[in-house]
Amino acid sequence: MPTPEFTLGPNNYGKSGVRLVRVGRESSRHDLRDLTVHTALSGDLDATHYTGDNAGVLPTDTQKNTVYAFAREGVGAIEVFAERLARHFVDATPSITSARVQIEEHAWTRVGDHSFTRGEGGELRTTEVVYGGGAVRTAAGVRDLLLLNTTDSEFSGFLVDEYTTLPETDDRVLATAVTATWDYAAEAPDGAVYDSAFYDHAFTRARGALLAAFADTYSLSLQQTLYAVGERILKTIPEVREVRLSLPNRHHYLFDLGRFGLDNPGVVFQAGDLPYGLIEGTVRREAA
Amino acid sequence: MPTPEFTLGPNNYGKSGVRLVRVGRESSRHDLRDLTVHTALSGDLDATHYTGDNAGVLPTDTQKNTVYAFAREGVGAIEVFAERLARHFVDATPSITSARVQIEEHAWTRVGDHSFTRGEGGELRTTEVVYGGGAVRTAAGVRDLLLLNTTDSEFSGFLVDEYTTLPETDDRVLATAVTATWDYAAEAPDGAVYDSAFYDHAFTRARGALLAAFADTYSLSLQQTLYAVGERILKTIPEVREVRLSLPNRHHYLFDLGRFGLDNPGVVFQAGDLPYGLIEGTVRREAA
Amino acid sequence: MPTPEFTLGPNNYGKSGVRLVRVGRESSRHDLRDLTVHTALSGDLDATHYTGDNAGVLPTDTQKNTVYAFAREGVGAIEVFAERLARHFVDATPSITSARVQIEEHAWTRVGDHSFTRGEGGELRTTEVVYGGGAVRTAAGVRDLLLLNTTDSEFSGFLVDEYTTLPETDDRVLATAVTATWDYAAEAPDGAVYDSAFYDHAFTRARGALLAAFADTYSLSLQQTLYAVGERILKTIPEVREVRLSLPNRHHYLFDLGRFGLDNPGVVFQAGDLPYGLIEGTVRREAA
Amino acid sequence: MPTPEFTLGPNNYGKSGVRLVRVGRESSRHDLRDLTVHTALSGDLDATHYTGDNAGVLPTDTQKNTVYAFAREGVGAIEVFAERLARHFVDATPSITSARVQIEEHAWTRVGDHSFTRGEGGELRTTEVVYGGGAVRTAAGVRDLLLLNTTDSEFSGFLVDEYTTLPETDDRVLATAVTATWDYAAEAPDGAVYDSAFYDHAFTRARGALLAAFADTYSLSLQQTLYAVGERILKTIPEVREVRLSLPNRHHYLFDLGRFGLDNPGVVFQAGDLPYGLIEGTVRREAA
Repeated sequence: MPTPEFTLGPNNYGKSGVRLVRVGRESSRHDLRDLTVHTALSGDLDATHYTGDNAGVLPTDTQKNTVYAFAREGVGAIEVFAERLARHFVDATPSITSARVQIEEHAWTRVGDHSFTRGEGGELRTTEVVYGGGAVRTAAGVRDLLLLNTTDSEFSGFLVDEYTTLPETDDRVLATAVTATWDYAAEAPDGAVYDSAFYDHAFTRARGALLAAFADTYSLSLQQTLYAVGERILKTIPEVREVRLSLPNRHHYLFDLGRFGLDNPGVVFQAGDLPYGLIEGTVRREAA
Repeated sequence: MPTPEFTLGPNNYGKSGVRLVRVGRESSRHDLRDLTVHTALSGDLDATHYTGDNAGVLPTDTQKNTVYAFAREGVGAIEVFAERLARHFVDATPSITSARVQIEEHAWTRVGDHSFTRGEGGELRTTEVVYGGGAVRTAAGVRDLLLLNTTDSEFSGFLVDEYTTLPETDDRVLATAVTATWDYAAEAPDGAVYDSAFYDHAFTRARGALLAAFADTYSLSLQQTLYAVGERILKTIPEVREVRLSLPNRHHYLFDLGRFGLDNPGVVFQAGDLPYGLIEGTVRREAA
Repeated sequence: MPTPEFTLGPNNYGKSGVRLVRVGRESSRHDLRDLTVHTALSGDLDATHYTGDNAGVLPTDTQKNTVYAFAREGVGAIEVFAERLARHFVDATPSITSARVQIEEHAWTRVGDHSFTRGEGGELRTTEVVYGGGAVRTAAGVRDLLLLNTTDSEFSGFLVDEYTTLPETDDRVLATAVTATWDYAAEAPDGAVYDSAFYDHAFTRARGALLAAFADTYSLSLQQTLYAVGERILKTIPEVREVRLSLPNRHHYLFDLGRFGLDNPGVVFQAGDLPYGLIEGTVRREAA
Repeated sequence: MPTPEFTLGPNNYGKSGVRLVRVGRESSRHDLRDLTVHTALSGDLDATHYTGDNAGVLPTDTQKNTVYAFAREGVGAIEVFAERLARHFVDATPSITSARVQIEEHAWTRVGDHSFTRGEGGELRTTEVVYGGGAVRTAAGVRDLLLLNTTDSEFSGFLVDEYTTLPETDDRVLATAVTATWDYAAEAPDGAVYDSAFYDHAFTRARGALLAAFADTYSLSLQQTLYAVGERILKTIPEVREVRLSLPNRHHYLFDLGRFGLDNPGVVFQAGDLPYGLIEGTVRREAA
């Protein structure tokens, strides 16, 4: 291989949007799992970039096949399924040294023994597992969990400059679509075993903590709500070491009805679309 | 006005995507309503088209204001709110002879006295009310109600031509996103009063009938399921005179695992996206 | 078949979202066509709805196969390809009496003998052909053709009621995403032959007429612009008998800079999203 | 402030989706600029997270106002506008130590002195400027630039494992939607001045290099194409020090027409949607 003029930096490749539906038929009361899987592999891939020599390239089509094949025997919690896949890609492929597997789970609610409708909340359960160098890092979370408080939210005392026209408010609608990701410690502090039962139970409790913190925090800023949510998850799940949150502020504007001789004591709002505030932050068990 | 060279045919104008959120504060346990309203007016509008004379044009901005102003005192069932708006636009505006008001309601589930998350099913409740010539026509429905059966669905005995390669199947996944619209008779057969209580109750029963018919119909074709759903709604709600259904067939392909030495007895599926089948039909109480 | 309790009304079924890309390799300078095809058949389909007897049902999968098979020998103008497909489905299938074929064409611009990038305008070229009872109806059009005028648009003299707060304006930005559909007369008035050359040439001229009418009409209302566009297409293409237009009014709000000691003489605008005005109308060669 | 139980990690907040349209009226031949701006500020924001004390919080509404106010005098190249904004937020706000401003520019093509339609390529021009600690980092790029080659693409010689079923191919359609980001060196090597003229010219040349590299590279893998594109940009623009590329592989499947007695010598393809391959990589002027 001739020396290339420039240098290949960080790179990865994989299959995105692998849509997997699995029906569990152990009894006449079927189970339903609905996942979207994304794989991304990296390793010794210089040759395909520099010269098109694909000897070290496991096709993305193969990665897709692997997802479906591995699902045959069951998937378990998405964190566990992602780890199975990530370990396989690294351990079975000489050229691959690291694998990232992301999964989103779409919720379904049972309406019959073999009938289902879309679950509530509108959100996806997510995971991201990275395996490489013998170590596994596992994150879990939710994407676009819609939440709205009709009161107990203020915004005042903020910094005012020459471009500030926003009035202070002591009662506003607070609406958001939570994307949260929490990292599990490599070593569980209480000796918990990271299996499907653990992850499912932890997810349920973390989601519950998130909802509760949103609902019962009297909010002086969306940042304060963000911290409260992160704090609540850390308190609830000792195995979590860090929570990352992205909270769009879906503005609801009180509609001016005074022009029509009507009052509007926090009743009629115009839901905004663009632009929206975006508050992002991290809450950690220990200082960095 | 000079005689124009061509003729203005059917036309309407209005405001689309009016995002209305209403908080009911009658008690500390707040109510939350979340609507998207679309208005469309028609009448004597030749002048604005031919010469730009807007004397008969009630601005779309005014239509939007009216939606918010009318929401101040409450909205009730969306069918009733749509009718209030439609009647107002026609009755108060000399140039307007007909109004169509469409509303979609986004569901929220309570998680606290003033806290909410998105409701289940992923669907919108819809209505369309047309008022003109002294008459009101009211339709109600759902949009994109996700449903999936893991079994009890066959497709066989179909017409085969030179381009047919589809194998027959006696067990498939049947998944769809139901859009249903049902028309209420102008005169309720049992003397029911078309008020908010009626519409809310009828909607709940119609949605329940839809889910039940989907879940308990052994399906030989999606058309058969469509008819069964329409039939069940008509049986359940005597005031409904016609049901229109649009059922995309969200194909789930059994993944070929035999290449990897695995069987796949209806367990692992690839959810398809494009293309999709689309089955549309109408079920009526009486013959047309 | 037992007598069903209710009546099947209008119905159709077909395949939506058939994504067809065709490469013309007649020379080393390849041609590229990129279509999305939707089929919808109707006919004697009572049995499948009432009892699940599919003997008259040509599978939607077969319809998809037919699209790809017919593309082998070439597609020509989308109007012609749609008609070929529609005629086939009716003429070759005893149970089918009517077929509607809709096609959207995605534009590509050449950047090399075999290299392409997405074409300008952001819009789709569309057609809808309905064949049944021995007759063909052909419509053509564009979807979401983005257009914006920075001036020469007023809106004043409109009807004012108690909910009207919109100020009059004598200079505004006028922006829209045109969806236009024009019907071709069954008999071409000048004896034109409805072949691919005709349709491609007519489309180019109609699109040009649309752009020119939008650009050079001094607009007193979006309705006036709508009529002007329809009129221009009718004047340009004698074979067109009717033009239907749907024009969302993509509002651009002059941003209030006076609060910061700045003037804003029609320079800085906030592009709105929801809600939007929606103006729909029809312009016909002859009175209805 | 009491000691919080947990630690606030990396965080930022700002306004996303600020839709700015600017009309240049220096002559009767108007200019049109159409930008979406996203701001994200960070600094000493512990208090608002821990206690809801907003004294250091410049409202996101103010950030939005600033975007519009700064646009009054002109925007120039988006790289320059982003830097003006980023510097302002840090330099004028004591609590803010770092600002990231991202801008997407939507292209319009002139069709008249004051009339425009959407430009070709379907892509957005992008920039990201980060200012903090006295230093500016400027990146530019494109998002979703659609490209398709009908030939001169192979994929063979790849790694085969037990889940590999993909056949080798020596002629395939290669289609992608390029997202590319290139970083400009802090010091221009040839003493270039980083002004609007520089950035606009560099963007045009980089985009041209990207298209040319895609069109004239005989591709043995999408990774090879990725490297070729990065290499071409680095060769063309000496001020660029690194190019990051994200290339979805938009699969086009040769449709099996043999079942219908037809050959298919690379003519008829089914364009796939999900899943898609995703190839991501970095090409650098110097080794890391």
